[in-house]
Amino acid sequence: MQGSKRPSSPVKGKLRLYSNRFCPYSQRVILVLDAKKISYDVVNINLYSKPDWYYDKSPFGKVPALEAENGDVIYESLVICDYLDEKYKAHHLHSQDPLQKAKDRLLIEQFNRVVNAMYKILSSIGRVNLDDDEAVANGLITFERELMNRGTPFFGGNKPGMLDLMIWPWCERAEILKLFGNANLLKKDKYRRLLEWSRRMAEEPSVKRSMMDSNTHIKYLQSYRAGRPDYDMILNSTD
Amino acid sequence: MQGSKRPSSPVKGKLRLYSNRFCPYSQRVILVLDAKKISYDVVNINLYSKPDWYYDKSPFGKVPALEAENGDVIYESLVICDYLDEKYKAHHLHSQDPLQKAKDRLLIEQFNRVVNAMYKILSSIGRVNLDDDEAVANGLITFERELMNRGTPFFGGNKPGMLDLMIWPWCERAEILKLFGNANLLKKDKYRRLLEWSRRMAEEPSVKRSMMDSNTHIKYLQSYRAGRPDYDMILNSTD
Repeated sequence: MQGSKRPSSPVKGKLRLYSNRFCPYSQRVILVLDAKKISYDVVNINLYSKPDWYYDKSPFGKVPALEAENGDVIYESLVICDYLDEKYKAHHLHSQDPLQKAKDRLLIEQFNRVVNAMYKILSSIGRVNLDDDEAVANGLITFERELMNRGTPFFGGNKPGMLDLMIWPWCERAEILKLFGNANLLKKDKYRRLLEWSRRMAEEPSVKRSMMDSNTHIKYLQSYRAGRPDYDMILNSTD
Repeated sequence: MQGSKRPSSPVKGKLRLYSNRFCPYSQRVILVLDAKKISYDVVNINLYSKPDWYYDKSPFGKVPALEAENGDVIYESLVICDYLDEKYKAHHLHSQDPLQKAKDRLLIEQFNRVVNAMYKILSSIGRVNLDDDEAVANGLITFERELMNRGTPFFGGNKPGMLDLMIWPWCERAEILKLFGNANLLKKDKYRRLLEWSRRMAEEPSVKRSMMDSNTHIKYLQSYRAGRPDYDMILNSTD
Protein backbone atom coordinates (compact mmCIF):
# COMPACT_ATOMS: atom_id res chain seq x y z
CA MET A 1 0.00 0.00 0.00
CA GLN A 2 1.39 3.36 -0.98
CA GLY A 3 1.23 6.50 1.09
CA SER A 4 -0.36 7.51 4.35
CA LYS A 5 -2.96 5.55 6.32
CA ARG A 6 -6.58 5.90 5.27
CA PRO A 7 -8.18 8.48 7.58
CA SER A 8 -11.11 7.48 9.81
CA SER A 9 -14.62 8.32 8.66
CA PRO A 10 -15.61 11.97 8.75
CA VAL A 11 -17.51 13.30 11.75
CA LYS A 12 -21.20 12.77 11.00
CA GLY A 13 -22.78 15.79 9.38
CA LYS A 14 -19.44 17.52 8.80
CA LEU A 15 -17.96 18.12 5.37
CA ARG A 16 -14.49 16.80 4.62
CA LEU A 17 -12.22 18.44 2.09
CA TYR A 18 -9.38 16.47 0.49
CA SER A 19 -6.89 19.18 -0.24
CA ASN A 20 -3.27 20.10 -0.65
CA ARG A 21 -1.72 23.04 1.18
CA PHE A 22 -0.15 24.56 -1.93
CA CYS A 23 -2.80 23.72 -4.51
CA PRO A 24 -4.55 26.91 -5.71
CA TYR A 25 -7.58 24.88 -6.86
CA SER A 26 -7.99 23.48 -3.34
CA GLN A 27 -7.64 27.01 -1.99
CA ARG A 28 -10.63 28.05 -4.10
CA VAL A 29 -12.82 25.62 -2.15
CA ILE A 30 -11.32 26.68 1.20
CA LEU A 31 -12.02 30.33 0.35
CA VAL A 32 -15.67 29.47 -0.35
CA LEU A 33 -16.04 27.34 2.80
CA ASP A 34 -14.51 30.13 4.93
CA ALA A 35 -16.50 32.93 3.25
CA LYS A 36 -19.72 30.99 3.83
CA LYS A 37 -18.69 30.06 7.40
CA ILE A 38 -19.26 26.36 6.75
CA SER A 39 -17.65 23.93 9.19
CA TYR A 40 -15.29 21.35 7.59
CA ASP A 41 -12.39 18.99 8.18
CA VAL A 42 -9.32 18.92 5.94
CA VAL A 43 -7.33 15.86 4.89
CA ASN A 44 -4.17 16.93 3.07
CA ILE A 45 -3.04 14.68 0.22
CA ASN A 46 0.59 14.31 -0.80
CA LEU A 47 0.28 14.86 -4.54
CA TYR A 48 3.83 13.68 -5.18
CA SER A 49 3.05 10.28 -3.71
CA LYS A 50 -0.71 9.82 -3.56
CA PRO A 51 -1.95 7.24 -1.07
CA ASP A 52 -3.67 4.23 -2.70
CA TRP A 53 -6.87 4.65 -0.69
CA TYR A 54 -7.36 8.09 -2.17
CA TYR A 55 -8.50 6.66 -5.53
CA ASP A 56 -11.50 5.13 -3.73
CA LYS A 57 -12.49 8.64 -2.73
CA SER A 58 -11.69 10.69 -5.83
CA PRO A 59 -12.04 8.60 -9.02
CA PHE A 60 -9.19 10.32 -10.85
CA GLY A 61 -7.12 10.94 -7.71
CA LYS A 62 -7.60 14.67 -8.09
CA VAL A 63 -7.65 17.32 -5.38
CA PRO A 64 -9.66 19.15 -4.34
CA ALA A 65 -12.44 16.65 -3.59
CA LEU A 66 -15.29 17.17 -1.17
CA GLU A 67 -16.89 14.38 0.85
CA ALA A 68 -20.47 15.47 1.40
CA GLU A 69 -22.43 14.71 4.55
CA ASN A 70 -23.90 11.55 2.97
CA GLY A 71 -20.45 10.18 1.99
CA ASP A 72 -20.69 11.06 -1.72
CA VAL A 73 -17.54 12.65 -3.12
CA ILE A 74 -17.45 15.39 -5.74
CA TYR A 75 -14.39 16.93 -7.37
CA GLU A 76 -13.42 19.80 -9.75
CA SER A 77 -13.01 23.06 -7.85
CA LEU A 78 -15.67 25.01 -9.77
CA VAL A 79 -18.28 22.25 -9.43
CA ILE A 80 -17.58 21.97 -5.69
CA CYS A 81 -17.77 25.75 -5.18
CA ASP A 82 -21.04 26.06 -7.11
CA TYR A 83 -22.42 23.13 -5.10
CA LEU A 84 -21.51 24.78 -1.79
CA ASP A 85 -23.09 28.05 -2.86
CA GLU A 86 -26.33 26.31 -3.86
CA LYS A 87 -26.54 23.96 -0.90
CA TYR A 88 -25.64 26.46 1.83
CA LYS A 89 -27.79 29.51 1.16
CA ALA A 90 -26.28 31.88 3.78
CA HIS A 91 -23.61 34.35 2.58
CA HIS A 92 -24.36 33.68 -1.10
CA LEU A 93 -21.39 34.27 -3.41
CA HIS A 94 -22.83 34.04 -6.92
CA SER A 95 -24.98 36.91 -8.15
CA GLN A 96 -28.69 36.25 -7.65
CA ASP A 97 -29.22 37.55 -11.20
CA PRO A 98 -28.77 34.54 -13.56
CA LEU A 99 -27.37 36.69 -16.40
CA GLN A 100 -24.74 38.33 -14.15
CA LYS A 101 -23.89 34.89 -12.77
CA ALA A 102 -23.40 33.59 -16.35
CA LYS A 103 -21.16 36.55 -17.20
CA ASP A 104 -19.09 35.95 -14.06
CA ARG A 105 -18.72 32.27 -14.99
CA LEU A 106 -17.39 33.35 -18.41
CA LEU A 107 -14.88 35.65 -16.69
CA ILE A 108 -13.74 32.75 -14.50
CA GLU A 109 -13.18 30.72 -17.70
CA GLN A 110 -11.28 33.64 -19.20
CA PHE A 111 -9.11 33.80 -16.08
CA ASN A 112 -8.32 30.10 -16.51
CA ARG A 113 -6.62 31.08 -19.78
CA VAL A 114 -4.52 33.65 -17.90
CA VAL A 115 -3.59 30.91 -15.42
CA ASN A 116 -2.54 28.54 -18.22
CA ALA A 117 -0.25 31.24 -19.63
CA MET A 118 1.15 31.87 -16.10
CA TYR A 119 2.05 28.19 -15.75
CA LYS A 120 3.75 28.25 -19.14
CA ILE A 121 5.87 31.21 -17.99
CA LEU A 122 6.77 29.44 -14.73
CA SER A 123 7.75 26.25 -16.54
CA SER A 124 10.05 28.00 -19.01
CA ILE A 125 12.54 29.96 -16.89
CA GLY A 126 15.11 31.78 -18.97
CA ARG A 127 13.15 31.32 -22.19
CA VAL A 128 10.91 34.38 -22.29
CA ASN A 129 7.89 33.68 -24.48
CA LEU A 130 6.25 36.95 -25.44
CA ASP A 131 2.98 35.22 -26.40
CA ASP A 132 2.48 33.96 -22.86
CA ASP A 133 3.45 37.33 -21.39
CA GLU A 134 0.94 38.96 -23.69
CA ALA A 135 -1.79 36.47 -22.79
CA VAL A 136 -1.29 37.25 -19.10
CA ALA A 137 -1.09 41.03 -19.66
CA ASN A 138 -4.18 41.14 -21.94
CA GLY A 139 -6.09 38.80 -19.66
CA LEU A 140 -5.44 40.99 -16.64
CA ILE A 141 -6.46 44.13 -18.57
CA THR A 142 -9.91 42.55 -19.01
CA PHE A 143 -10.21 42.32 -15.23
CA GLU A 144 -8.84 45.83 -14.67
CA ARG A 145 -11.54 47.17 -17.04
CA GLU A 146 -14.20 45.02 -15.44
CA LEU A 147 -13.44 46.53 -12.01
CA MET A 148 -13.62 50.00 -13.54
CA ASN A 149 -16.97 49.27 -15.21
CA ARG A 150 -18.46 47.76 -12.07
CA GLY A 151 -17.23 50.65 -9.92
CA THR A 152 -17.38 48.50 -6.76
CA PRO A 153 -14.55 47.54 -4.36
CA PHE A 154 -14.91 43.86 -5.32
CA PHE A 155 -16.18 42.09 -8.45
CA GLY A 156 -19.00 40.83 -6.24
CA GLY A 157 -19.92 44.35 -5.04
CA ASN A 158 -19.19 45.48 -1.49
CA LYS A 159 -17.85 42.07 -0.48
CA PRO A 160 -15.95 39.37 -2.37
CA GLY A 161 -18.23 37.17 -4.51
CA MET A 162 -17.60 33.94 -6.41
CA LEU A 163 -15.54 35.63 -9.16
CA ASP A 164 -13.27 37.34 -6.59
CA LEU A 165 -12.64 34.07 -4.76
CA MET A 166 -12.11 31.94 -7.89
CA ILE A 167 -9.32 34.15 -9.24
CA TRP A 168 -7.71 35.04 -5.89
CA PRO A 169 -5.36 32.04 -5.39
CA TRP A 170 -3.32 33.05 -8.45
CA CYS A 171 -3.39 36.74 -7.55
CA GLU A 172 -2.02 35.82 -4.12
CA ARG A 173 0.86 34.15 -6.01
CA ALA A 174 1.38 37.01 -8.51
CA GLU A 175 4.68 38.10 -6.93
CA ILE A 176 6.20 34.81 -8.10
CA LEU A 177 5.75 35.89 -11.72
CA LYS A 178 7.95 38.92 -11.18
CA LEU A 179 10.80 36.62 -10.20
CA PHE A 180 10.41 34.12 -13.00
CA GLY A 181 8.75 36.01 -15.83
CA ASN A 182 9.20 39.21 -17.69
CA ALA A 183 9.89 42.03 -15.22
CA ASN A 184 7.60 44.39 -17.16
CA LEU A 185 4.66 42.03 -16.95
CA LEU A 186 2.87 43.51 -13.98
CA LYS A 187 3.32 47.23 -14.53
CA LYS A 188 1.70 49.01 -11.63
CA ASP A 189 0.12 51.84 -13.61
CA LYS A 190 -1.66 49.42 -15.97
CA TYR A 191 -3.34 47.53 -13.16
CA ARG A 192 -4.06 50.21 -10.58
CA ARG A 193 -7.55 48.99 -9.73
CA LEU A 194 -6.53 45.36 -9.71
CA LEU A 195 -3.72 46.11 -7.26
CA GLU A 196 -6.08 48.05 -5.01
CA TRP A 197 -8.50 45.12 -5.20
CA SER A 198 -5.67 42.76 -4.32
CA ARG A 199 -4.83 44.79 -1.20
CA ARG A 200 -8.49 44.81 -0.16
CA MET A 201 -8.76 41.05 -0.68
CA ALA A 202 -5.68 40.48 1.51
CA GLU A 203 -7.41 42.36 4.32
CA GLU A 204 -10.61 40.28 4.27
CA PRO A 205 -10.74 38.06 7.39
CA SER A 206 -12.10 35.02 5.49
CA VAL A 207 -9.39 35.40 2.82
CA LYS A 208 -6.62 35.85 5.41
CA ARG A 209 -7.36 32.42 6.89
CA SER A 210 -5.86 30.54 3.92
CA MET A 211 -3.33 33.15 2.85
CA MET A 212 0.41 32.49 2.61
CA ASP A 213 3.08 35.10 1.97
CA SER A 214 5.07 35.32 -1.27
CA ASN A 215 8.24 33.95 0.34
CA THR A 216 6.43 30.75 1.30
CA HIS A 217 4.98 30.38 -2.20
CA ILE A 218 8.41 30.90 -3.74
CA LYS A 219 10.08 28.42 -1.37
CA TYR A 220 7.42 25.83 -2.19
CA LEU A 221 7.83 26.41 -5.93
CA GLN A 222 11.58 25.95 -5.60
CA SER A 223 11.15 22.67 -3.70
CA TYR A 224 8.63 21.53 -6.36
CA ARG A 225 10.96 22.38 -9.21
CA ALA A 226 13.76 20.48 -7.48
CA GLY A 227 11.57 17.36 -7.65
CA ARG A 228 10.89 17.14 -3.88
CA PRO A 229 7.90 19.36 -3.06
CA ASP A 230 7.86 20.25 0.63
CA TYR A 231 4.14 20.08 1.39
CA ASP A 232 4.77 20.25 5.14
CA MET A 233 6.84 23.44 5.01
CA ILE A 234 4.27 25.50 6.87
CA LEU A 235 3.27 22.84 9.41
CA ASN A 236 5.06 24.51 12.31
CA SER A 237 3.86 27.97 11.54
CA THR A 238 0.18 27.91 10.58
CA ASP A 239 -1.25 24.39 10.73
CA MET B 1 -16.42 43.56 -44.87
CA GLN B 2 -16.36 39.80 -44.79
CA GLY B 3 -19.41 37.58 -44.73
CA SER B 4 -23.13 38.09 -44.59
CA LYS B 5 -24.95 41.32 -43.72
CA ARG B 6 -25.40 42.14 -40.05
CA PRO B 7 -28.91 41.03 -39.06
CA SER B 8 -31.44 43.57 -37.77
CA SER B 9 -31.93 43.89 -34.02
CA PRO B 10 -33.73 41.02 -32.30
CA VAL B 11 -37.46 41.33 -31.67
CA LYS B 12 -37.85 43.04 -28.30
CA GLY B 13 -38.13 40.55 -25.47
CA LYS B 14 -37.16 37.58 -27.65
CA LEU B 15 -33.96 35.64 -27.24
CA ARG B 16 -31.64 35.31 -30.23
CA LEU B 17 -29.34 32.35 -30.65
CA TYR B 18 -26.26 32.61 -32.88
CA SER B 19 -25.85 29.06 -34.01
CA ASN B 20 -24.62 26.74 -36.73
CA ARG B 21 -26.80 24.00 -38.16
CA PHE B 22 -24.19 21.28 -37.76
CA CYS B 23 -22.54 22.38 -34.51
CA PRO B 24 -23.31 19.93 -31.68
CA TYR B 25 -22.54 22.62 -29.06
CA SER B 26 -25.17 24.89 -30.63
CA GLN B 27 -27.57 21.95 -30.65
CA ARG B 28 -27.16 21.65 -26.87
CA VAL B 29 -28.63 25.13 -26.47
CA ILE B 30 -31.42 24.45 -28.98
CA LEU B 31 -32.32 21.26 -27.10
CA VAL B 32 -32.61 23.25 -23.86
CA LEU B 33 -34.63 26.05 -25.47
CA ASP B 34 -37.02 23.51 -27.03
CA ALA B 35 -37.32 21.37 -23.88
CA LYS B 36 -38.14 24.48 -21.84
CA LYS B 37 -40.51 25.79 -24.55
CA ILE B 38 -38.73 29.15 -24.69
CA SER B 39 -39.36 31.28 -27.76
CA TYR B 40 -36.22 32.28 -29.72
CA ASP B 41 -34.85 33.42 -33.07
CA VAL B 42 -31.87 31.75 -34.74
CA VAL B 43 -29.12 33.45 -36.75
CA ASN B 44 -26.91 30.83 -38.39
CA ILE B 45 -23.22 31.69 -38.65
CA ASN B 46 -20.98 30.38 -41.43
CA LEU B 47 -18.07 29.09 -39.34
CA TYR B 48 -15.89 28.62 -42.42
CA SER B 49 -16.12 32.31 -43.23
CA LYS B 50 -17.33 34.19 -40.17
CA PRO B 51 -18.89 37.59 -40.88
CA ASP B 52 -16.92 40.52 -39.43
CA TRP B 53 -19.88 41.86 -37.45
CA TYR B 54 -20.09 38.63 -35.50
CA TYR B 55 -17.02 39.51 -33.39
CA ASP B 56 -18.98 42.46 -31.99
CA LYS B 57 -21.52 39.97 -30.71
CA SER B 58 -19.37 37.06 -29.50
CA PRO B 59 -15.95 38.28 -28.30
CA PHE B 60 -14.07 35.19 -29.51
CA GLY B 61 -16.31 34.63 -32.54
CA LYS B 62 -17.59 31.40 -31.03
CA VAL B 63 -20.95 29.74 -31.54
CA PRO B 64 -23.23 29.14 -29.81
CA ALA B 65 -23.83 32.60 -28.37
CA LEU B 66 -27.07 33.85 -26.86
CA GLU B 67 -28.26 37.43 -27.08
CA ALA B 68 -30.36 37.99 -23.97
CA GLU B 69 -33.43 40.19 -23.88
CA ASN B 70 -31.36 43.18 -22.70
CA GLY B 71 -28.83 42.81 -25.55
CA ASP B 72 -26.06 41.21 -23.48
CA VAL B 73 -24.41 38.24 -25.18
CA ILE B 74 -23.17 35.13 -23.40
CA TYR B 75 -21.34 32.18 -24.93
CA GLU B 76 -20.06 28.66 -24.00
CA SER B 77 -22.81 26.07 -24.39
CA LEU B 78 -22.80 24.88 -20.76
CA VAL B 79 -22.89 28.42 -19.36
CA ILE B 80 -25.78 29.33 -21.70
CA CYS B 81 -27.74 26.17 -20.82
CA ASP B 82 -27.29 26.67 -17.07
CA TYR B 83 -28.35 30.30 -17.50
CA LEU B 84 -31.53 29.31 -19.34
CA ASP B 85 -32.39 26.73 -16.69
CA GLU B 86 -31.95 29.28 -13.90
CA LYS B 87 -33.66 32.17 -15.61
CA TYR B 88 -36.68 30.28 -16.99
CA LYS B 89 -37.98 28.23 -14.08
CA ALA B 90 -40.64 26.20 -15.96
CA HIS B 91 -39.65 22.68 -17.11
CA HIS B 92 -36.49 22.65 -15.00
CA LEU B 93 -33.76 20.42 -16.39
CA HIS B 94 -31.11 20.31 -13.65
CA SER B 95 -31.86 18.27 -10.54
CA GLN B 96 -33.28 20.39 -7.74
CA ASP B 97 -30.90 18.56 -5.38
CA PRO B 98 -27.58 20.49 -5.45
CA LEU B 99 -25.49 17.33 -4.87
CA GLN B 100 -27.17 15.43 -7.72
CA LYS B 101 -26.75 18.51 -9.92
CA ALA B 102 -23.02 18.60 -9.07
CA LYS B 103 -22.66 14.88 -9.89
CA ASP B 104 -24.44 15.41 -13.22
CA ARG B 105 -22.11 18.31 -14.04
CA LEU B 106 -19.13 15.98 -13.40
CA LEU B 107 -20.65 13.40 -15.76
CA ILE B 108 -21.05 16.09 -18.43
CA GLU B 109 -17.33 16.89 -17.97
CA GLN B 110 -16.53 13.18 -18.24
CA PHE B 111 -18.53 12.97 -21.45
CA ASN B 112 -16.49 15.86 -22.85
CA ARG B 113 -13.48 13.53 -22.63
CA VAL B 114 -15.38 10.90 -24.65
CA VAL B 115 -16.16 13.60 -27.23
CA ASN B 116 -12.49 14.61 -27.48
CA ALA B 117 -11.56 10.97 -28.17
CA MET B 118 -14.38 10.77 -30.77
CA TYR B 119 -12.97 13.78 -32.62
CA LYS B 120 -9.52 12.22 -32.58
CA ILE B 121 -10.93 9.07 -34.17
CA LEU B 122 -12.77 11.10 -36.82
CA SER B 123 -9.66 13.12 -37.67
CA SER B 124 -7.45 10.07 -38.13
CA ILE B 125 -9.19 7.92 -40.75
CA GLY B 126 -7.28 4.79 -41.56
CA ARG B 127 -4.96 5.13 -38.57
CA VAL B 128 -6.82 3.25 -35.82
CA ASN B 129 -5.62 4.49 -32.44
CA LEU B 130 -6.59 1.98 -29.79
CA ASP B 131 -6.17 4.53 -26.96
CA ASP B 132 -8.90 6.71 -28.41
CA ASP B 133 -11.14 3.70 -29.05
CA GLU B 134 -10.61 2.65 -25.46
CA ALA B 135 -11.34 6.15 -24.14
CA VAL B 136 -14.66 6.16 -26.01
CA ALA B 137 -15.56 2.59 -24.96
CA ASN B 138 -14.65 3.12 -21.28
CA GLY B 139 -16.35 6.48 -21.24
CA LEU B 140 -19.58 5.04 -22.58
CA ILE B 141 -19.47 2.16 -20.07
CA THR B 142 -19.63 4.78 -17.29
CA PHE B 143 -22.89 6.03 -18.77
CA GLU B 144 -24.28 2.51 -19.31
CA ARG B 145 -23.65 1.78 -15.60
CA GLU B 146 -25.08 5.11 -14.57
CA LEU B 147 -28.35 4.33 -16.37
CA MET B 148 -28.44 0.92 -14.66
CA ASN B 149 -27.84 2.47 -11.22
CA ARG B 150 -30.45 5.16 -11.73
CA GLY B 151 -33.01 2.64 -13.02
CA THR B 152 -34.95 5.38 -14.81
CA PRO B 153 -35.71 5.76 -18.55
CA PHE B 154 -33.59 8.93 -18.73
CA PHE B 155 -30.64 10.21 -16.71
CA GLY B 156 -33.00 12.97 -15.56
CA GLY B 157 -35.69 10.48 -14.43
CA ASN B 158 -38.93 10.08 -16.36
CA LYS B 159 -38.05 12.84 -18.80
CA PRO B 160 -34.75 14.05 -20.26
CA GLY B 161 -32.84 16.34 -17.90
CA MET B 162 -29.76 18.50 -18.40
CA LEU B 163 -27.34 15.54 -18.53
CA ASP B 164 -29.46 13.78 -21.20
CA LEU B 165 -29.57 16.90 -23.37
CA MET B 166 -25.88 17.82 -22.96
CA ILE B 167 -24.64 14.44 -24.22
CA TRP B 168 -27.32 13.86 -26.87
CA PRO B 169 -25.82 15.76 -29.86
CA TRP B 170 -22.88 13.32 -30.00
CA CYS B 171 -25.10 10.29 -29.44
CA GLU B 172 -27.24 11.42 -32.37
CA ARG B 173 -24.00 11.35 -34.41
CA ALA B 174 -22.79 7.99 -33.05
CA GLU B 175 -23.48 6.13 -36.32
CA ILE B 176 -20.71 8.19 -37.93
CA LEU B 177 -18.15 6.50 -35.68
CA LYS B 178 -19.07 3.10 -37.06
CA LEU B 179 -18.08 4.29 -40.53
CA PHE B 180 -14.85 5.98 -39.57
CA GLY B 181 -13.70 4.24 -36.41
CA ASN B 182 -13.18 0.75 -35.17
CA ALA B 183 -16.18 -1.40 -36.16
CA ASN B 184 -16.15 -3.10 -32.74
CA LEU B 185 -16.40 0.17 -30.88
CA LEU B 186 -20.11 0.30 -30.31
CA LYS B 187 -20.92 -3.33 -29.53
CA LYS B 188 -24.63 -3.59 -28.96
CA ASP B 189 -24.51 -5.99 -26.01
CA LYS B 190 -22.13 -3.75 -24.05
CA TYR B 191 -24.39 -0.71 -24.30
CA ARG B 192 -27.87 -2.20 -24.16
CA ARG B 193 -29.30 0.45 -21.82
CA LEU B 194 -27.59 3.29 -23.62
CA LEU B 195 -29.04 2.14 -26.96
CA GLU B 196 -32.53 1.89 -25.43
CA TRP B 197 -32.04 5.37 -23.99
CA SER B 198 -30.94 6.60 -27.40
CA ARG B 199 -34.14 5.24 -29.00
CA ARG B 200 -36.27 6.89 -26.31
CA MET B 201 -34.46 10.21 -26.79
CA ALA B 202 -35.09 10.07 -30.54
CA GLU B 203 -38.83 9.76 -29.83
CA GLU B 204 -39.04 12.83 -27.58
CA PRO B 205 -40.92 15.62 -29.41
CA SER B 206 -38.58 18.38 -28.15
CA VAL B 207 -35.53 16.34 -29.20
CA LYS B 208 -37.00 15.52 -32.63
CA ARG B 209 -37.21 19.23 -33.50
CA SER B 210 -33.43 19.58 -33.93
CA MET B 211 -32.67 16.02 -35.00
CA MET B 212 -30.96 15.14 -38.26
CA ASP B 213 -30.51 11.64 -39.66
CA SER B 214 -27.16 9.87 -39.87
CA ASN B 215 -26.96 10.27 -43.65
CA THR B 216 -27.16 14.05 -43.33
CA HIS B 217 -24.49 14.05 -40.60
CA ILE B 218 -22.23 11.89 -42.76
CA LYS B 219 -22.76 14.05 -45.85
CA TYR B 220 -21.95 17.18 -43.84
CA LEU B 221 -18.81 15.57 -42.39
CA GLN B 222 -17.67 14.63 -45.89
CA SER B 223 -18.19 18.19 -47.16
CA TYR B 224 -16.30 19.50 -44.09
CA ARG B 225 -13.39 17.14 -44.64
CA ALA B 226 -13.23 18.20 -48.27
CA GLY B 227 -12.61 21.75 -47.08
CA ARG B 228 -15.99 23.15 -48.23
CA PRO B 229 -18.53 22.52 -45.46
CA ASP B 230 -22.07 22.67 -46.83
CA TYR B 231 -23.91 24.43 -44.02
CA ASP B 232 -26.99 24.98 -46.20
CA MET B 233 -27.42 21.31 -47.12
CA ILE B 234 -30.67 20.92 -45.22
CA LEU B 235 -32.16 24.30 -46.14
CA ASN B 236 -34.72 22.86 -48.56
CA SER B 237 -35.82 20.05 -46.32
CA THR B 238 -36.17 21.31 -42.75
CA ASP B 239 -35.43 25.02 -42.44
